[in-house]
Amino acid sequence: MTISVQNRSADVTDFETEFGTQLELSQHAQDLLFRQARTANTFTDEPVTDEQVKAIYDLAKWAPTSMNNQPLRVVLVRSEAARDRLVQTMSDGNKKKTAAAPLVAILAADHSFHENFHKTFPHFPGARDMFAANDAIRAQSADLNATLQVAYFILAVRAAGLAAGPMTGYDASALNGAFFADGTRKVLAVVNIGKPGHDAWAERLPRLDFDEVVTTV
Amino acid sequence: MTISVQNRSADVTDFETEFGTQLELSQHAQDLLFRQARTANTFTDEPVTDEQVKAIYDLAKWAPTSMNNQPLRVVLVRSEAARDRLVQTMSDGNKKKTAAAPLVAILAADHSFHENFHKTFPHFPGARDMFAANDAIRAQSADLNATLQVAYFILAVRAAGLAAGPMTGYDASALNGAFFADGTRKVLAVVNIGKPGHDAWAERLPRLDFDEVVTTV
Repeated sequence: MTISVQNRSADVTDFETEFGTQLELSQHAQDLLFRQARTANTFTDEPVTDEQVKAIYDLAKWAPTSMNNQPLRVVLVRSEAARDRLVQTMSDGNKKKTAAAPLVAILAADHSFHENFHKTFPHFPGARDMFAANDAIRAQSADLNATLQVAYFILAVRAAGLAAGPMTGYDASALNGAFFADGTRKVLAVVNIGKPGHDAWAERLPRLDFDEVVTTV
Repeated sequence: MTISVQNRSADVTDFETEFGTQLELSQHAQDLLFRQARTANTFTDEPVTDEQVKAIYDLAKWAPTSMNNQPLRVVLVRSEAARDRLVQTMSDGNKKKTAAAPLVAILAADHSFHENFHKTFPHFPGARDMFAANDAIRAQSADLNATLQVAYFILAVRAAGLAAGPMTGYDASALNGAFFADGTRKVLAVVNIGKPGHDAWAERLPRLDFDEVVTTV
């Protein structure tokens, strides 16, 4: 059922006989972003610089959101005090790796994204007021679109040659209280970022087959 | 405020002087997936084959989800009757392009993803029952992770050399009633897929600056 570590590379990049050759994206890029990339649980000590994060954001920002609303907000946890506060809100299984990663980013949805529509959607001046008038729809759109952007961000981390370790195991209420006291931002994921370290991942887990996921009507 | 169509290519692929050269991902792949790719509103008549969709899924499936839960489900709307039913649930601004696209896919979250844990997370036999016991946490995890997979799917469509037109403007209750009567799947997005047609997109809209999105603590 699981794929052995020894055979993993061959299995997931069986490029010539599988579907990879039908894509316009190069084999190297397929491997870097999808096939060979893995969720890292350990990292080397090599730091992740602000310049690297700028390059990651400069790529991820172009991918689409509804009405270009771009609700993702990123908090880089660089101080020791902030890291300690964050680790306290993580679930037990995530504390150790969150404490040790070269860089940890909190990815959140900004529920006040509509205040940027004058810049992000300038041809529709009514957009701000439309979303200001409906908290439930605004929250739903913030969460949906910021979550899309979490995925773009994870792939952009990989595009920078780094490994991402996205985590959803934390006390969201405690984390939001510790970092987003104003209430407009809500955590969606916490991501460890760095170069993969010793024994960085377990065996790759199976994916669902096409026929288990895709149906035709 | 907006970027002129004439200058768009130069602006968004200012590769040599901007951040693109700092990434391991090639310029071609950056352009194909992020910088040059656009949300298409019109398409050519060229069909999208099942083989192309299989290649898209075979790439997207590798990107990460929480506990490997993979809640994304895809419905390819190929029959005329199903297309008509779908168009009726779309908002007025989306009806015409949904009716005309070579292929339309409904992307949904499967709230019964935990029934697959015996295959997708076999080393933790208690996973199924843990999620079976808490509908709210299961729904939250389904929506979050399937939304991540919507983003992976959009980028995989682009990796196949096709354009995606993701839409969130529809009557979700009507759409779920028409396509997901059993109640376990919930729509997250509808995506038009094909080769971009005449006048396929408007001017590219501005993205938020790094300092508007990223803070350090």
